[in-house]
Amino acid sequence: MTSNRLEAFSDGVLAIIITIMVLELISPEQVTLESLIPIIPTFVSYLFSFIYIGIYWNNHHHLFQITQKINGRILWSNLHLLFWLSLIPFATTWIGENYKAHVPVALYGFILMMSAVAFFILQRSIIKGHEENFILRTAVGRDLKGKISITLYTFGVLISFLNTWAALTCYVIVAIIWFIPDSRIEKTLDGSKKENVNG
Amino acid sequence: MTSNRLEAFSDGVLAIIITIMVLELISPEQVTLESLIPIIPTFVSYLFSFIYIGIYWNNHHHLFQITQKINGRILWSNLHLLFWLSLIPFATTWIGENYKAHVPVALYGFILMMSAVAFFILQRSIIKGHEENFILRTAVGRDLKGKISITLYTFGVLISFLNTWAALTCYVIVAIIWFIPDSRIEKTLDGSKKENVNG
Amino acid sequence: MTSNRLEAFSDGVLAIIITIMVLELISPEQVTLESLIPIIPTFVSYLFSFIYIGIYWNNHHHLFQITQKINGRILWSNLHLLFWLSLIPFATTWIGENYKAHVPVALYGFILMMSAVAFFILQRSIIKGHEENFILRTAVGRDLKGKISITLYTFGVLISFLNTWAALTCYVIVAIIWFIPDSRIEKTLDGSKKENVNG
Amino acid sequence: MTSNRLEAFSDGVLAIIITIMVLELISPEQVTLESLIPIIPTFVSYLFSFIYIGIYWNNHHHLFQITQKINGRILWSNLHLLFWLSLIPFATTWIGENYKAHVPVALYGFILMMSAVAFFILQRSIIKGHEENFILRTAVGRDLKGKISITLYTFGVLISFLNTWAALTCYVIVAIIWFIPDSRIEKTLDGSKKENVNG
Repeated sequence: MTSNRLEAFSDGVLAIIITIMVLELISPEQVTLESLIPIIPTFVSYLFSFIYIGIYWNNHHHLFQITQKINGRILWSNLHLLFWLSLIPFATTWIGENYKAHVPVALYGFILMMSAVAFFILQRSIIKGHEENFILRTAVGRDLKGKISITLYTFGVLISFLNTWAALTCYVIVAIIWFIPDSRIEKTLDGSKKENVNG
Repeated sequence: MTSNRLEAFSDGVLAIIITIMVLELISPEQVTLESLIPIIPTFVSYLFSFIYIGIYWNNHHHLFQITQKINGRILWSNLHLLFWLSLIPFATTWIGENYKAHVPVALYGFILMMSAVAFFILQRSIIKGHEENFILRTAVGRDLKGKISITLYTFGVLISFLNTWAALTCYVIVAIIWFIPDSRIEKTLDGSKKENVNG
Repeated sequence: MTSNRLEAFSDGVLAIIITIMVLELISPEQVTLESLIPIIPTFVSYLFSFIYIGIYWNNHHHLFQITQKINGRILWSNLHLLFWLSLIPFATTWIGENYKAHVPVALYGFILMMSAVAFFILQRSIIKGHEENFILRTAVGRDLKGKISITLYTFGVLISFLNTWAALTCYVIVAIIWFIPDSRIEKTLDGSKKENVNG
Repeated sequence: MTSNRLEAFSDGVLAIIITIMVLELISPEQVTLESLIPIIPTFVSYLFSFIYIGIYWNNHHHLFQITQKINGRILWSNLHLLFWLSLIPFATTWIGENYKAHVPVALYGFILMMSAVAFFILQRSIIKGHEENFILRTAVGRDLKGKISITLYTFGVLISFLNTWAALTCYVIVAIIWFIPDSRIEKTLDGSKKENVNG
């Protein structure tokens, strides 16, 4: 069982998640420039969720490039990740309308945190499903970025009940950390010349 | 005619079905933790429908891995399955808002039952479209899980008019039965080394 | 330029068209069996539009199996077809709510007719883009089914202003004619053994 | 890293963008021919946005046919393009309802302009990611069409505050310019026989 169809299905789900959020951008009743101001928070929350989904797509892309076979555990770990990501549009709408309120900011961070945890689980499932000398083990290494992300999200969720701006700052830092695709895997791939085989 | 495009189209439809259900999760007017309580039933119904669609995607994936050629009957059996699955978002919304009412619980089970029947028909169409010594015949065997599912759904639909919790229990049992992907096919595939050829 | 990506994009658009129509099935306020009765017309119109899109997907699938190369004219003929098909959800909603009214029935038929014309144009574009001895020319032949469809749709649209049931009957007859995938192409393909090459 | 999955994901997003716009075509309350008149502007704006997305899909298709490898910069340049294109449905709804108002016409043009800029950046990222003797450099050349488009959009946005019809004319001219797929690339491809390799 190769990963082609798992990737195609995930691409479909991610493409829909990233796009349906735009349906929340309701065109204003008025036709003045000022009438666009009230939708700025919704727009900014859309922009950030677009970036988060983009990061997950990039990392998913990298991860499955070095995945050679699929099993039931990997299939379900992947669906688990997609489930949490599919809740992002819901949380985006809520935070877009209430970005100064504690609970929506906490919920947004909670769903991002669970997505990060789900990605971590997926990575472990893939490593477990391959042999000892699997390239991914070297490529992922200690997965420092993944662990920092989960820590920052957890901290953001907790602090959101005290100060929403501090929480939002935590979330933005994670986005910046992940903005550059996972060069560890790219480098390891180049080293092993595996790219020519099934890149 | 190979199955590539049938799989791609099915992946697209399943990806949309599994994702549009999240549009039913309407963000609350209030911003308190309590304001999330009323949407818990909708969330739980979304979670279960996500799992059911995930199960169908997994089994569909397994089924078409060992399908070597496609004909008109298989194309239409597949569209028939997608039709019933496409009704799940509708039934999910209704049951999410009325999970204690007889008719929504019965309708939800009815659509799951018809989906199971459609999957059974698709399996038969594929077996019929292949030669005698077709690997799928061995892999599917008596298809005990499929038959148990249809029986449980039918029982659930009938009992839903007496007790909705009993009906919901039946549906959950089916989910548990299918949660693990069809290892029969995976095992048969490994045995015949077909995996290397068109896995 | 091969047709892979054109097929993938078309699959995506068709998958979305066939699935978003289900969003029009609004769950009833009441939870009685009787409360489902008012949505029966919407359900039936969904069922038929699902079948029409299914037919187009099947025929599109068959058509591009024997298409060897793509050019600008074919790309735009394909987008033209997708444009008319994308209007089917709109017409489906309107006819579902007003299946006894002249204009919605006429509009539904008009969009089906334009889709049939667009498919005809696409077929011609593909034939034109290939050599003289192109297999499709033999396979399509006089395209009797295509011409009958356009005639029946045109007749249906005109008669819908007198009697909507007569118009609906015309549309249903076309569905029945096309229900079986285009065996002409399948037969020609088998004859030329081309199936093994790029099936 | 090859471009297969990037293309598949982009196809998914573009397919959704091009299709969800049709959800804005609300079926009229009345069932007369006259009742369709108020939705004509929405329909026309849908038609034009469909054409613009179609043009981007065509050019994207051409561009990635001659892209041999992907890196992080190209991934993000592509997501940047998809982001601006994903705002087209929002702008389409607004202009469809207010095609005579200055701000909606300007916003529509602004999003088209940013999409054109994003496509330009994507092209540069791809050229930068390849060797000196990269075929795309020859194929794209001075990219006159791209530069004219950005100029026309910018002019359209500015003039929209004076006269909306003049602005709309600018936008339509760009559509006409790009309507024919990028034959430069097609010609260069034919010349280098590269089509046989990864077309």
